[in-house]
Amino acid sequence: MRIDGRDFRTIWLERDGTSVGVIDQRLLPHRFAVRTLRSDRDAADAIADMTVRGAPLIGAAGAYGMALAMGADASDGNLGRAYDGLLVARPTAVNLRWALDRMRSRLAALRPAERRNAAYAEAARVAEEDVETCADLGRHGAALIRDRWDRKGRSRPVQVLTHCNAGWLAAVDWGTALAPVYKAHRAGVPVHVWVDETRPRNQGASLTAYELLGEGVPHTVVVDNVGGHLMQHGKVDLCIVGTDRTTRTGDVCNKIGTYLKALAAHDNRVPFYVALPSSTIDWRINDGLREIPIEERSADEVMFISGETASGTIETVRVTPRGSPACNYAFDVTPARLVTGLITERGLCPASEAGLLSLFPGEERAA
Amino acid sequence: MRIDGRDFRTIWLERDGTSVGVIDQRLLPHRFAVRTLRSDRDAADAIADMTVRGAPLIGAAGAYGMALAMGADASDGNLGRAYDGLLVARPTAVNLRWALDRMRSRLAALRPAERRNAAYAEAARVAEEDVETCADLGRHGAALIRDRWDRKGRSRPVQVLTHCNAGWLAAVDWGTALAPVYKAHRAGVPVHVWVDETRPRNQGASLTAYELLGEGVPHTVVVDNVGGHLMQHGKVDLCIVGTDRTTRTGDVCNKIGTYLKALAAHDNRVPFYVALPSSTIDWRINDGLREIPIEERSADEVMFISGETASGTIETVRVTPRGSPACNYAFDVTPARLVTGLITERGLCPASEAGLLSLFPGEERAA
Repeated sequence: MRIDGRDFRTIWLERDGTSVGVIDQRLLPHRFAVRTLRSDRDAADAIADMTVRGAPLIGAAGAYGMALAMGADASDGNLGRAYDGLLVARPTAVNLRWALDRMRSRLAALRPAERRNAAYAEAARVAEEDVETCADLGRHGAALIRDRWDRKGRSRPVQVLTHCNAGWLAAVDWGTALAPVYKAHRAGVPVHVWVDETRPRNQGASLTAYELLGEGVPHTVVVDNVGGHLMQHGKVDLCIVGTDRTTRTGDVCNKIGTYLKALAAHDNRVPFYVALPSSTIDWRINDGLREIPIEERSADEVMFISGETASGTIETVRVTPRGSPACNYAFDVTPARLVTGLITERGLCPASEAGLLSLFPGEERAA
Repeated sequence: MRIDGRDFRTIWLERDGTSVGVIDQRLLPHRFAVRTLRSDRDAADAIADMTVRGAPLIGAAGAYGMALAMGADASDGNLGRAYDGLLVARPTAVNLRWALDRMRSRLAALRPAERRNAAYAEAARVAEEDVETCADLGRHGAALIRDRWDRKGRSRPVQVLTHCNAGWLAAVDWGTALAPVYKAHRAGVPVHVWVDETRPRNQGASLTAYELLGEGVPHTVVVDNVGGHLMQHGKVDLCIVGTDRTTRTGDVCNKIGTYLKALAAHDNRVPFYVALPSSTIDWRINDGLREIPIEERSADEVMFISGETASGTIETVRVTPRGSPACNYAFDVTPARLVTGLITERGLCPASEAGLLSLFPGEERAA
């Protein structure tokens, strides 16, 4: 997607055919900088320090980290060492383990001399498959947006509300919840996006707004408190959010605050869609509220906030009184009853076990 | 109420019997400073620059501003000039006009020589009446909290969630939504308050947390996105919020985001109470959603945030990309159907016309 008129992915092989470029997302939206990864250690650092974030992107970065390791030393010993070093970079990221396992099993079966080229090819496939999945999902979601446009008599832009960042910066390209927006926009359907700020890490105000700005999609940043009011007054045509984990019954675990928007959508009959690559479906889980543990992150994320000062430096300021504790639940669960539909790479389905199995029939056995 | 172990109100007559002390609320929670008002001009400035804020407090500050004016020059000309100068300090504040009208009609009827003493006495009554109203409201609300404690078998603290700041800093003492908390806490009922940060102006994270800290009430600051998750998991026993305007039918216009918390409370069967002095009831209005205009404030409040740096200075930082627009609706309307009950200075009632008229029967004629 575009930043300042130039096309980017979040991760790419540099022209030297060896090193790997990534966008340093820690300084967005205030600074745009590219970081070059030259070793698996660099890749692990970039994952650990959140230069790259977002489950699909972390997986691709891990895969390229394995390729960098094989370029330096394709021995069995180094294969194991690189795997271990990358895995601990973000211990809870499911996609990271998945990508590393895939790389290791592919590479371990080869002679060391074959590993470097095979590793780069496999890492490229990991990235490319993510792009295809997101593009497919975007195509299906864009049809929904076009349908809203048609129903409005093509008179005014379709108003989409989204929460957090499920855009291309979290993936390799396109994104999940934002892929339908980009596909619709590029197809000439007028879209305007209400961007939830998404406290405490402000992924909406920083990353989602930045993405939409780069791609030229009209948007407005609002604080997380505003969505209900917008829906009460007919200013939202549909909500589209991402998900970190989806139960086989269609419950959705996504960024904290998603549930509140789903309640407002339900109360005002605004369609509420969740966009997901099928890799986020956890077929073993039936009840999201009871079975999905919710990560508690550092209270510092609530108590401090970073931004750009008038003089152009990045500064962190305290916003709560010294002595007042804070707590920081990172996700919440939106029950399937509040979800109008799921947008997957295979198409749309109801947020239910029957709905999901209609698209992914092979998963029945996991019940 | 207490700050660092010392008792304060938000406004008081200084020992010289002439000048007026106020807490400079612009620097809270990072700095505590008192400002001395020595003229009606000082009072108007303090209102205009938000040294004092909160409808009841602005009213009291206006009243004391009139007293300061009469101390300097009790002529008819100065009475009118002071009234005009104070009124424009915050043109939309209903309480300010109400207090100034009350002062002017009381003073205009007197000879100039009598006005100074009468003005100080009347300003003191304006402040004292607000304290009494809030204390009464707090007493009625505290009974609710005690009742929850009893129902829990007095085993664990009562968990109260509040949004924005409807505490003593917004009034002269006690506050509205927080008055029940303070009354219960002082009566020995264990209470813990979940403090919504309340973006974009962060009145929860700054003022409410600061108040509770000073008074020694256990509390935890959370971002506005968290409340739904807390209620899903049984971590909230009741919600208490304030209101800026209440319709005769019990619809509540309060700080943006209140509606989302009311939806979550309703979805999880958590009682949702609104505390209000009866002066906020607008007996002319039946439908809050259609009839109450919602103020849009500067987008800068969304795009920039102030706090304290590590080196102890107060700094403002930008949190959104340059070029991304923002919008800033300040209030939303919570329909009466989502409100469990109203807490007034005359007691509790259902959020309905019949409920309100049962406590305020004289208002029937305003229909």
